[in-house]
Amino acid sequence: MDHSEEKTGNPSTAGKQMLIGLHLGNGYGSQPGAWRMPGVDPKNYTSFDARVKQAQAAERGKFQFIFLPDGPGAVMSDIETESPSFNLDVMLTLAAVARETEHIGLVATGSTTFNEPYNLARQFKALDVMSHGRAGWNAVTSSGNDVAANYGRTIPSSGERYGRAHEAVQLIQALWGSWGKDAWVHDQESGQFAKKDQIVPINLQGKYVGSRGPLYIPPSEQGQPIIFHAGGSPNAHELAGRFANAVIGAAFTIEDARAQRNAFRAAAKRYGRDPDEIKYIPGLMTTIAKDRRTALDRRIQLTGDLFPQRVAYLQQMLGISLDPTRLDEPLSKAQLAAALPSRHDPRSPHALKIAKEGWSLRDILAHGVIDYHPVIVGPGVEAADHMQTWFEAGAADGFWISPDVNTDGIDAFVDEVVPILQERGLFHREYEGKTLREHLGAPDQYGIDPRV
Amino acid sequence: MDHSEEKTGNPSTAGKQMLIGLHLGNGYGSQPGAWRMPGVDPKNYTSFDARVKQAQAAERGKFQFIFLPDGPGAVMSDIETESPSFNLDVMLTLAAVARETEHIGLVATGSTTFNEPYNLARQFKALDVMSHGRAGWNAVTSSGNDVAANYGRTIPSSGERYGRAHEAVQLIQALWGSWGKDAWVHDQESGQFAKKDQIVPINLQGKYVGSRGPLYIPPSEQGQPIIFHAGGSPNAHELAGRFANAVIGAAFTIEDARAQRNAFRAAAKRYGRDPDEIKYIPGLMTTIAKDRRTALDRRIQLTGDLFPQRVAYLQQMLGISLDPTRLDEPLSKAQLAAALPSRHDPRSPHALKIAKEGWSLRDILAHGVIDYHPVIVGPGVEAADHMQTWFEAGAADGFWISPDVNTDGIDAFVDEVVPILQERGLFHREYEGKTLREHLGAPDQYGIDPRV
Repeated sequence: MDHSEEKTGNPSTAGKQMLIGLHLGNGYGSQPGAWRMPGVDPKNYTSFDARVKQAQAAERGKFQFIFLPDGPGAVMSDIETESPSFNLDVMLTLAAVARETEHIGLVATGSTTFNEPYNLARQFKALDVMSHGRAGWNAVTSSGNDVAANYGRTIPSSGERYGRAHEAVQLIQALWGSWGKDAWVHDQESGQFAKKDQIVPINLQGKYVGSRGPLYIPPSEQGQPIIFHAGGSPNAHELAGRFANAVIGAAFTIEDARAQRNAFRAAAKRYGRDPDEIKYIPGLMTTIAKDRRTALDRRIQLTGDLFPQRVAYLQQMLGISLDPTRLDEPLSKAQLAAALPSRHDPRSPHALKIAKEGWSLRDILAHGVIDYHPVIVGPGVEAADHMQTWFEAGAADGFWISPDVNTDGIDAFVDEVVPILQERGLFHREYEGKTLREHLGAPDQYGIDPRV
Repeated sequence: MDHSEEKTGNPSTAGKQMLIGLHLGNGYGSQPGAWRMPGVDPKNYTSFDARVKQAQAAERGKFQFIFLPDGPGAVMSDIETESPSFNLDVMLTLAAVARETEHIGLVATGSTTFNEPYNLARQFKALDVMSHGRAGWNAVTSSGNDVAANYGRTIPSSGERYGRAHEAVQLIQALWGSWGKDAWVHDQESGQFAKKDQIVPINLQGKYVGSRGPLYIPPSEQGQPIIFHAGGSPNAHELAGRFANAVIGAAFTIEDARAQRNAFRAAAKRYGRDPDEIKYIPGLMTTIAKDRRTALDRRIQLTGDLFPQRVAYLQQMLGISLDPTRLDEPLSKAQLAAALPSRHDPRSPHALKIAKEGWSLRDILAHGVIDYHPVIVGPGVEAADHMQTWFEAGAADGFWISPDVNTDGIDAFVDEVVPILQERGLFHREYEGKTLREHLGAPDQYGIDPRV
């Protein structure tokens, strides 16, 4: 690839392009009100058709991957009015998507805390073979007592969880690599099915987990799945620095994102790797419409009856009292003067900035100031500008996108944001290859070479 | 249904029809030489396309289910010349099949020994929802040290394994039932997503496993998956008698099969159930061709170089010495006179019966006398006769079929055996409903009714 005509002027990103992933969750979208929107099938929570269509829309937009978070706790305190957040099963969803897409990478979370490593190894490797080399495993630890209770346990300490995670990832990569690259011969003429001397046991026994192996699955077109990680603690930096090719991040400011990205890069270096082998990918939530007002109105529709509850949140962020019955009015001069962004909430300065622009209380909230990631509520160019700024500031190698609604919300991103990024030379126009490893520019990783 | 015209005369089966399942394993078929047969793609081991096509062929034949065994040990001692026996991953295979079939039941083995119950619960329930009520879980214990080694463990005692299995099945059924039948409302107008008071924690804590729940997955069209079991020990009778609606069996004689079937029925009765709720389904292997000679020749082609090794086996079964260089000759009168069927091998009397018919040593073996189940090598009517005899003798409620080769071997069964069974009134001509529960005539099982 030659992007020399499209250089941005910033030496660190010159000629480089960003990655984009789609967050695929409960089938409706990232906003709690998505399931009630016009045009949305209220049965999408259980619809694999819907997930496949959504992944196909992302593939039309040349997204490098879809990302399916998972948390086997699924607290359902809001079930009376809201859908659970996650897929019914991330692996079955990806199996359906694998069969009905051609290029897009397939990434899901799998907990190292409450899964047997051998079971994770075989299921992700099978997906990798099934998808012809498009699988990624987001290897995380589980930290919620809600989750642990579903396994009849309590949560281990962070040290124990990460200790087990390091062993589990190492063991799983060893199982994935237990077949040499060319071990599977399947020669009908000679009758040789596989080269037995290139399929070897791994015999790893750690403090927490162990396995003899080998796995019974030959390499995929990309050798083996790619490791992702999600988390921001020092333990996360170490695990990702050692094993991961991509990090699913969460950061509200360029400064925080850049610090995170640098921490992961430094950790990779400590483990003897090229820092460019680890991509830091923070989240971005989007409500894309033809102008800001239209986008805000869409957000207001999506928020429904939740405004009073969100006003209470905003009060804490700004340290002032707000009246939930006066949603149509902007904050008073006295309120703005008294406001003090909470030091405990990194979203607070941005919330105050929006408030100072003079929007009504309802519109301030409709900007998504208390959402889980930075939020774009406006025309496509605003999303493109945000992404370019972060990318060129060394704060991100790409973004995972959570559209407000997973029907027209994905299409709006694909049709309104992607073309701008492509014109600016910041995003590819076509898949570079067939595998997720090719999409990410990650180095090859096959199995053992018993001759060495 | 009215089968009164088709009564067989036997009161216990009058008006009843048998069940048929297809064994779906490594993608080639049940014979080790299947992967080398003309017309077989040698890459089928990793091909989900192939599995889907095979399941579709079984659906064309109105089979009630496909059955995917699994043994997460996959000893690969013969990998130089033979494929491993199992699917890359049974759940991903069933996900692909679920998307590309409409009626056939989807049954896979899942070990209670080396899986977290919560993980089994959510994956089988998700499959059940995905397939619109066609999932079955073959709940077994793992007994091989080869398997245990892949989990860094040794095999627990049979008592412990079955103790954990009882807890796991009970817990999983409770998780499956943690949503009431009508708990999922998804009413866009009113904004009610679900009835929270009909989704309840299970709070089961046993000696081996526990879970708080609830699961986050609503009921499928059949409520919840159906429990299968496989095994023949007294422990197996108890587990199946308590929970299972079907048993994947293995028996070489009518007498053994009938005894097994009666033992499972008696166990069901002990647990307060109607014995007809548990179906005993032994295995049958098939090589179907236009006549016996053609079928034997096909088997000979499939056996390839393995004859000497099988002669050694046959020697032990018959208690006589056999010469592997004289494959073309029948056994001598002296050999037949000296032969004494091994009391340790239930296949031995049948092997001697075939030998006495005067077939050559090669042809004796080509009859499949040392295979894992009864074997039909001949025209379709021989399979139909076998099935009718066992069914009417109270030895089977149906059969799981292992064709020799999973291409034309399935088609041969569908085209040559199924029509005969249908004409005899022993097998349905059309699916009775949409769900596996309907196919098996199993009683409804939904979730909790918190009003009771």
